[in-house]
Order: sequence, then structure tokens, then C-alpha cells
Amino acid sequence: MRSLKITLSYDGTDYCGWQTQPNGQSIQDRVEAAIYAVTKQRTRVTASGRTDAGVHAMGQVASCDVNCGLPVDVMQRAINANLPADIRVLRIDDSLPGFHAIRDAHSKRYRYVIQDGGVLDVFAQHYCWFVPQELNQQLMSAAGQLLVGTRDFASFQAAGSPRASTIRTIHEINIKRSEVSLSKQIVCEFTADGFLYNMVRNMVGTLVEVGQGRRPVEWIQNVLAARDRSEAGITAPPQGLFLVSVYY
Amino acid sequence: MRSLKITLSYDGTDYCGWQTQPNGQSIQDRVEAAIYAVTKQRTRVTASGRTDAGVHAMGQVASCDVNCGLPVDVMQRAINANLPADIRVLRIDDSLPGFHAIRDAHSKRYRYVIQDGGVLDVFAQHYCWFVPQELNQQLMSAAGQLLVGTRDFASFQAAGSPRASTIRTIHEINIKRSEVSLSKQIVCEFTADGFLYNMVRNMVGTLVEVGQGRRPVEWIQNVLAARDRSEAGITAPPQGLFLVSVYY
Repeated sequence: MRSLKITLSYDGTDYCGWQTQPNGQSIQDRVEAAIYAVTKQRTRVTASGRTDAGVHAMGQVASCDVNCGLPVDVMQRAINANLPADIRVLRIDDSLPGFHAIRDAHSKRYRYVIQDGGVLDVFAQHYCWFVPQELNQQLMSAAGQLLVGTRDFASFQAAGSPRASTIRTIHEINIKRSEVSLSKQIVCEFTADGFLYNMVRNMVGTLVEVGQGRRPVEWIQNVLAARDRSEAGITAPPQGLFLVSVYY
Repeated sequence: MRSLKITLSYDGTDYCGWQTQPNGQSIQDRVEAAIYAVTKQRTRVTASGRTDAGVHAMGQVASCDVNCGLPVDVMQRAINANLPADIRVLRIDDSLPGFHAIRDAHSKRYRYVIQDGGVLDVFAQHYCWFVPQELNQQLMSAAGQLLVGTRDFASFQAAGSPRASTIRTIHEINIKRSEVSLSKQIVCEFTADGFLYNMVRNMVGTLVEVGQGRRPVEWIQNVLAARDRSEAGITAPPQGLFLVSVYY
């Protein structure tokens, strides 16, 4: 048996998310089917985290064990030949036996893209959250800095999805303006040792309230202190979210 | 009656092209239906040129006459509210009576995007031509310069679509490298007083042969001189093509 580390990109638009579901197409199903087509072995592929319906990945990492003698680059091409064009294996590496994409990850980076103002960019509609009015990027960036560090993020955890601990360490938050062909965007990047369920989308929904001028920057401290989901902003929609990298 | 100049963007992926067809969804149909929903008048919308199935527009221009007293910005929002999200009106201007989007255009700019090498970028698959091997951008740029000027472009006209004259003036060709999140791209822009049917896609297919090193830069001069479609390269696929601007 070989332990593999598989790095994947996918456009989540047409999927029910990473995880196999009773109804709906999952990315996991497609990847496992493509590996089966190449190796003729049923194998379980474990991703670093389950992305939700509509969420994208530029560098998801998954682990699996296979009994297959193909060189990694040949395996990569063969698996890609059996995947739809909206899921691609970017690379495959042999890993140490027992490599586990969830347990062994020490940090992750997510990106969230917002189009603020203007007319909906037809080329970005599946890849951003369209907020009709212009946002103040500087206020959002200042508010984001208050989330950096080792903190209790209970207020940003989706209701009904408790984890043993709601303490996480955010290493970096970077909120920048970007111009693409038809629109102005705000690109938010978050790097942390881990994220609670919906944590990035809940942080973005909260930061947007600051960017709209509806809440002051310091409000973030109240939200953190409350440890109560209802104190934070709305959950930003899935299509603006990208899993950028997983670090091991 | 008011004469309107309507500037539009659209993602052509899910359409049979601009023009109404017996089978298939056209962009023209959707725009005319949205105008009808707002004005309760059937009106014919004329675009500066018909884009083919899969071809995109960042700044298509269309003309139409309507009997409607709404201010242009109100009309724009109302029409957008009646269009699918992959077609957007970017602006509406009142124009001089008799304004005609085809006849009055004095030049146009198209962009063609190629991903060369690497693994297919899942986020660009509908917006570029994926060429598996890396291309030489400098050779392509040098070859492109041989197409600039007033010339007979008969070799780049789709077979079976003769125009009265095959002479056009290309004002500028700009071929650059660009890096997007997951891929390396070559972005080709063409500005001319007009384009023959499939001319941009045929020029790109020809320039790619130079970029692959299969033909020398000077081959372009032979292709032009031949005045024969079969001497040029293949027709590049539609999804890499964007109508950027129409100038009046």
C-alpha cells in the first residue's frame, strides 16, 4: 500500500460540496470514481476539510492509500483524464505511511472575494459575493486585525455545530482591493491553525457590516467577547470562498 | 421614439450566441424579452456584431428604438432585474436618432485568452483556450506585428462566408503574458476597423503555431499573401474570445 497526498483544485459551483451526500454530486464521489477507474480499487479519499456546496478550492489536500505501482505524474494524468473539467488534480506526492490530510494539517489559508458596487460582473458571479454598495476596505482591514491571534471564536461558529474547543489561532488576515476586468473587488485572506464550521463566512459577513459603516471597528471586540453567534454578522454566501492552501 | 445605445456584458457559455436561432437560447432573445418586460413593447435590438456560441462580451454595444419615458439609469436597473445573471446591461445612453450599432461603429477591440501549459485551470476553463505546452509569447508577439496595418485578410476569413471586401485595418495587436491564480496565460488583444467572420479566432490559431515553434515568424507573410483560408492555422475555440469594446 502507498500513502498518497493529492493536491486538488475544483470549481464548487455544480457540486453539493466535498462530502458524499445521499442526494447530489459530491467532489469526493468524483475523485474516488476517477481513482477507481485508474487503479480498479475502491478507496476512501479524506480531504483536509469538507468544503460546502458552491465553495471552491485552489489547493485542497486529500489523503488516500492505494495499491498501485504507477509513477505519481502518470497517475495524476490518468486520474485527470477520468475527472470532469471542473475538478483537477494539481499534483500527487508519495507521503509517509499513515499520512492523514485532516490530522496532519497544521494550518490553512482561505480566500474570500467580494464585488462591491457597480453592476454584477458576469464572469465573477460564481466566484464572489456581490454587495451592491461600495465598502470601506480600510475599515474592514482594521477590523480584521482585531481577529488575529489566539482567541475564542465561538461567536463565529455556525449554530448547532459545536466543537470541543472554539479556540483557534489566526496567524494573518489580509484585506486588499483588487481590480478585475469588469469590477472592483475586495479580497480577504485568512490563515489559521484551523477554522470552525462556517467561521470564514461568518467573519466576512461581520467585516462587511464594518465596511458598510453600520458598525464601528471596535464592535469586533464585543462580538468576540460575547461568545454568541447571534452577536456576529450574517454568513457570507458560499460562492466567494476558496480554500487556497493547506500546510503540513 | 428614443434611440438607445446599450452597453452589455455577457458570459456566452450557456448561449447559442448573440443572434436568435431556431433552436437554442440566444442573448438577443433574452435582451429583447427583458426590454419587453420593462416597456411592454416588442423591439428589435441590433448588436455591433454577432458573437458565436461560447463567445463572451465585456462591452458589446446594441442599438434599439423604444417608446419609453424612463430615465436611462432606471431603465438599466429594470432591464437587469429581468435578465439572467450571466447577461448584464452596463449602461444605457440616449443616442442621436437613427443610431445604428453596426453601421456607426468605427473600430472594435477583441481579447483572446490562452492558458499554455500546466494543469487546466478550473476557474478559467470557460474563459480560455487550454494549450497543453508552453508557448513562446515573444515569437507570437513578433508574428502579430506582421498582421498590423491595412491588409487583405482573406486567409483569415471563415470558409463559406465571403464579404464584399476582405481588406481591413488592424490598428494594434498586443500579446502579453499574464498570471492568474492557478495558471499562466497569454492574452492577445486586437483592435481593428472591422473583423471578418472568425478572423480573430483564425489569427489566434495561426499565431499559436508560431508560438509552438512549428512555423517561423515570417510564415505570417506567406499566409497573408496566399489569400487562402487553408494556408492559415486552425480556428481557435470560442470560449477564449471576448468582445472588449466597440468604438463610435
